Amino acid sequence: MHPIHHTDKTLVIDLGDRSYEILVQSDCIHAIHRQEGLPQSSCALVVTNQTVGPLYGAQLVAALKHRYPTVHILELPDGEEHKHWQTLNLIFDALLRNGCDRKTVLFALGGGVVGDMTGFAAACYMRGVPFVQVPTTLLAQVDSSVGGKTGINHPLGKNMIGAFYQPRLVVCDLSTLDTLPERELSAGLAEVIKYGPIADMEFMAWQENAMDALRARDRSVLAHAVRRSCEIKAWVVGQDERESGLRAILNFGHTFGHAIEAGMGYGVWLHGEAVGAGMVMAAELSKRMGLVDEAFVQRLRSLIERAGLPVKAPVLDAADNAGRYLELMRVDKKAESGEIRFVLIDGPGKAVLRAVPDALVREVIDTCC
Amino acid sequence: MHPIHHTDKTLVIDLGDRSYEILVQSDCIHAIHRQEGLPQSSCALVVTNQTVGPLYGAQLVAALKHRYPTVHILELPDGEEHKHWQTLNLIFDALLRNGCDRKTVLFALGGGVVGDMTGFAAACYMRGVPFVQVPTTLLAQVDSSVGGKTGINHPLGKNMIGAFYQPRLVVCDLSTLDTLPERELSAGLAEVIKYGPIADMEFMAWQENAMDALRARDRSVLAHAVRRSCEIKAWVVGQDERESGLRAILNFGHTFGHAIEAGMGYGVWLHGEAVGAGMVMAAELSKRMGLVDEAFVQRLRSLIERAGLPVKAPVLDAADNAGRYLELMRVDKKAESGEIRFVLIDGPGKAVLRAVPDALVREVIDTCC
Repeated sequence: MHPIHHTDKTLVIDLGDRSYEILVQSDCIHAIHRQEGLPQSSCALVVTNQTVGPLYGAQLVAALKHRYPTVHILELPDGEEHKHWQTLNLIFDALLRNGCDRKTVLFALGGGVVGDMTGFAAACYMRGVPFVQVPTTLLAQVDSSVGGKTGINHPLGKNMIGAFYQPRLVVCDLSTLDTLPERELSAGLAEVIKYGPIADMEFMAWQENAMDALRARDRSVLAHAVRRSCEIKAWVVGQDERESGLRAILNFGHTFGHAIEAGMGYGVWLHGEAVGAGMVMAAELSKRMGLVDEAFVQRLRSLIERAGLPVKAPVLDAADNAGRYLELMRVDKKAESGEIRFVLIDGPGKAVLRAVPDALVREVIDTCC
Repeated sequence: MHPIHHTDKTLVIDLGDRSYEILVQSDCIHAIHRQEGLPQSSCALVVTNQTVGPLYGAQLVAALKHRYPTVHILELPDGEEHKHWQTLNLIFDALLRNGCDRKTVLFALGGGVVGDMTGFAAACYMRGVPFVQVPTTLLAQVDSSVGGKTGINHPLGKNMIGAFYQPRLVVCDLSTLDTLPERELSAGLAEVIKYGPIADMEFMAWQENAMDALRARDRSVLAHAVRRSCEIKAWVVGQDERESGLRAILNFGHTFGHAIEAGMGYGVWLHGEAVGAGMVMAAELSKRMGLVDEAFVQRLRSLIERAGLPVKAPVLDAADNAGRYLELMRVDKKAESGEIRFVLIDGPGKAVLRAVPDALVREVIDTCC
């Protein structure tokens, strides 16, 4: 089963009656009203944040007014630290204050935080209204476009409250990456790099050649990175929509990464930065499990470093650093009955899910921090 | 398509891989661990309220301990006025504080409010954990057992935030109705009465004979009322799980009813009381549309009255009562682009969805208040 097919610029995510298209183009927001996949409605609400809104909000609203009689816009505060119920509720407030009915279309204009919250609001408002993603960060374009994960954080854990909910259309406008801060571009590259070791070593080799062009924001090179990442993710998710098994391999580097994010306090390290260091740790753990050699670990570390990402993990607790990492990983939602299952590289290009003795995990933490 | 079949004591709701059973029995909470449909897990959380918890909480926890190594219990404040985010968050807090993983089973022990909130928490916690309903009010047994509606209220509207999410099992213990206050028993009967006019005049005739026994809590009579109500609801919902068309007929009396609840302030009138008066209004509107005769309206009004329910609607605004009703009905989530669609009786035993001229609605409000 291969859940996608594509034309030059469009991927189709095949999910039966919830199928949708991912468009990867440049300068296309101003013409979004011409897209075929847009849901019919008398009303649309654009949800964005205070950083992206001033850059692209007016352009999107103007385009949508050609299609929807009423278009509202809402700017949320920017940042992972606002990805919680109180901010989500601003979306519900706006919908209800404006008398938006159950056919209202939500547009998520921004990065992963805006996308996750808008998607979750769409999943819950009147038990479900349509939504469209317009991701403006590389991370959101390669990661949030496929998979239907939406949600918010809880003080005791990241993404603990949410829903699986599919968009009706995803419009990736590569031009919006021009205004993306350097650090966030690098963070997005972490999720692009991930797909090599777990699924496609040819893609990893391509990235080794393309890394300078990617960081220089060459649009045709970015277009391939976004499309191929979405393709691989769609192939994995298509086999496991509800995350019971295979899909977990997409969390390569994320178990350590989530511990870093939680331990540093959300927002101190970007998600992609934590995943960067986390992938080095997971590769090191794979090596200690006898699954890959040191040369592979070095090759991956070098690519991560060239992307502008940290390869050394932070110390989370001076007194008992490994203990703190383990504690944080045990409350991660991938854990079951307190047992942590790591995504390991089982030979380059293939991932497996494994429980690992604590002692070995401690060694890796001591080595990588 | 007929989505249910049943043995003596069990209805099966046929939803493919989300199928589940509704058990209607007496004195069965203490033996719930012997039920086959219970999900496997190492952990369960019973969510109840401060009224029902002291009555049946210990019994349920003791039974579940035969099945689940760890069983937690959480008592929420009781009442519709607590059906909001802050209370829902108490469930997430309990789950995360206790380190509950994504296989944790939530048990909803209580009425509709507990069921709606627990079901919504189950839908959202880690993007979905299994849940089991143990409804202890007649309303919850006949209404929440089927349909998968979960959610919370927003200051600007009832049930505005929620999800469609199916339980794994529903256990209706008729013995729990012994402790139900008289007023709540009547409120539950409103939803039983509803099924006659919209779908089954034989059931209405049966209720006319059985009303005294129902109010005296005769268990075999209650058992039939619960089973037949669930059967009819399952038949309707099975044809329209996501509420795009036919399912709306289950909202007979609810458009007026929701306006009464919102206008009086949630919790002043019970939901069933508002639906009782709302059904009289909807029947009156059906008559004025030429769909039923005055005799039918009288017959329904008499049955509602014998159930101990109000048949006269409250005045919501002394200056412009009809205007206030219309305003409240227009923000109801069944409305689309501000157009109210009423469930009308199109001859006894059959319902239709219709828009109606405001002038006619005003007449009905003036007549019924």
